[in-house]
Amino acid sequence: MVNTVGIIGLGLIGGSLARRLAERGIRVVAWNHRPHPYAQAEADGIFCKSTLAELMDAEPDVVVLCNPLKAMPAMLDSLAPLMVEHPRTTITDVGSVKGMVREQVEAAGLGECYVGAHPMAGNELSGWQAADPHLYDDALWAVTVDSATNYQRFLDVAALITKGVGNRLIVLDDETHDKAAAMISHMPHVVSTALINELSAYPDRNIAAALAAGCWRDMTRVALTDPNRTRAMVEEDALNVEALLRRMAKRLTDMADQLHDGDETDVIRFFAEGNPFRQYKSALTHASDGAAESLPERELTVPESGWQQTLLFSARRGEAIIGFVNPRQAIIQLRPAM
Amino acid sequence: MVNTVGIIGLGLIGGSLARRLAERGIRVVAWNHRPHPYAQAEADGIFCKSTLAELMDAEPDVVVLCNPLKAMPAMLDSLAPLMVEHPRTTITDVGSVKGMVREQVEAAGLGECYVGAHPMAGNELSGWQAADPHLYDDALWAVTVDSATNYQRFLDVAALITKGVGNRLIVLDDETHDKAAAMISHMPHVVSTALINELSAYPDRNIAAALAAGCWRDMTRVALTDPNRTRAMVEEDALNVEALLRRMAKRLTDMADQLHDGDETDVIRFFAEGNPFRQYKSALTHASDGAAESLPERELTVPESGWQQTLLFSARRGEAIIGFVNPRQAIIQLRPAM
Repeated sequence: MVNTVGIIGLGLIGGSLARRLAERGIRVVAWNHRPHPYAQAEADGIFCKSTLAELMDAEPDVVVLCNPLKAMPAMLDSLAPLMVEHPRTTITDVGSVKGMVREQVEAAGLGECYVGAHPMAGNELSGWQAADPHLYDDALWAVTVDSATNYQRFLDVAALITKGVGNRLIVLDDETHDKAAAMISHMPHVVSTALINELSAYPDRNIAAALAAGCWRDMTRVALTDPNRTRAMVEEDALNVEALLRRMAKRLTDMADQLHDGDETDVIRFFAEGNPFRQYKSALTHASDGAAESLPERELTVPESGWQQTLLFSARRGEAIIGFVNPRQAIIQLRPAM
Repeated sequence: MVNTVGIIGLGLIGGSLARRLAERGIRVVAWNHRPHPYAQAEADGIFCKSTLAELMDAEPDVVVLCNPLKAMPAMLDSLAPLMVEHPRTTITDVGSVKGMVREQVEAAGLGECYVGAHPMAGNELSGWQAADPHLYDDALWAVTVDSATNYQRFLDVAALITKGVGNRLIVLDDETHDKAAAMISHMPHVVSTALINELSAYPDRNIAAALAAGCWRDMTRVALTDPNRTRAMVEEDALNVEALLRRMAKRLTDMADQLHDGDETDVIRFFAEGNPFRQYKSALTHASDGAAESLPERELTVPESGWQQTLLFSARRGEAIIGFVNPRQAIIQLRPAM
């Protein structure tokens, strides 16, 4: 059950989450390192607190850490003594890397009450002034667990996501999450940045920029976001990003060699290799007619022992959790698989 | 003066161009290798011809070759004998590479009447059924010339673009065009394709695909377009794409090394290198308030001798031609420069 949610940090992600939850009738208490968003937040029905102690005194069922990752160790240290008096509160976060956050949570002695989370939502803006409940429209969350995660606490975070925010989730271990996030976000951010670096170094850059149309605009959009935020995200997932950048460099070098050799068979193969993703996208559009709500659903029994693996395997099949019939019966949405 | 325009090939680009010109009151005659679009095209006010000879008999001022590039040599060979009787007609095209097309045009003996063109417009669709006059909204064309290009023929193609289509243009030599197009389109198409190849080969691809949000969607959009069309485009500009792929591979490898070494100074430098492009985009948005029409304008005198260089230098400064006061006085739009 999630009646009260504590939000720490009213930036783009936390502010949007607080506004969305309040809009959907959840009691939201919030704390921000500076009180400048408080007047507007209070007008949106969010109860703003001047100290973390006051926030905890509101007895939140779940506290969502939406502070920047670099502030995480200090935040956890401030929270740890307060948690002693509120042992039933579950802590989660919205960070784009999960292994590092779990280590920090455990270093602060809060591992027992922690469930990781990462909403796949965001845009190129930042700060409370950009906060928008619609940021979470149709978003999918990764919820990260390990073998010690308490199932009831997982259910609380899952309820926050499905009932509270109205979103879907998949359950992963930290490593699977961090590698997959490197694949579809952290590494591509570096590639996008490398593209604008290449253009900036290009002698006829004004001509190239004038010719730039949809392809260039789309491929460099994320490189226009705050480069410090992107850099932090990449550095926090450095090992996985490094490995993928080397694989991408090899793919580009191989293609350069094939163009040099004029070997049409290899070039044809290069352009066909991504067909599984093309077919997946086509199947997804066809199956859902563009709307995630229209994908087929079924129930999944979650065992007491090994529930983490059961839910990870479900995610690997392309399924997402959209709710629970009872604590051991999840409702899952079936998506096309690659 | 451009009263009548001949369009060869009623696919996405040619069909959209024909519809746009007809809509704007230009007399359009068209030929397609198969007559299936003719009924709809005629209903849109386009005069469809069953042979190239009939199209030429309509005395078009400019003929725009919108056939696929691979059909270009055969098309030019068919056109060459007809052009003998219509020496005042100017030939142009819409191909995404310009050096190769000029060689083919000269091989067919049509170099004297040719001016190259490449509208920066398109989408992931193809064929007449996708033709849409709005495809050309606010598009910029590259017009390619060499030292032998006839200035009056250039003016006819420029009039077609500015008065006929209502677009802007910049003047380039073939090499400058093909290198710049490789920079902002052909090479990025390969990078986008390499991303979906990497995901398709990724063990947890269903999980990664589920987590994919705006960054991934935008960076892989062009990889979902017809891979054969992309492959043809890349192969036609192979030398330039090869060189840029090697430069990109080096940038990604260098970044991987820097992440490996944990050298924050180099990582910070990587994320700052593209600032000239970020500043250009910001200045462009600020200067135009999002609408190209609101950029400042001035006149540019075009000399009789060396006009190609004068217009190339104008393009290098970030300027675009939007019309002519008289044949030697161009109206140019001033854009922010990098």
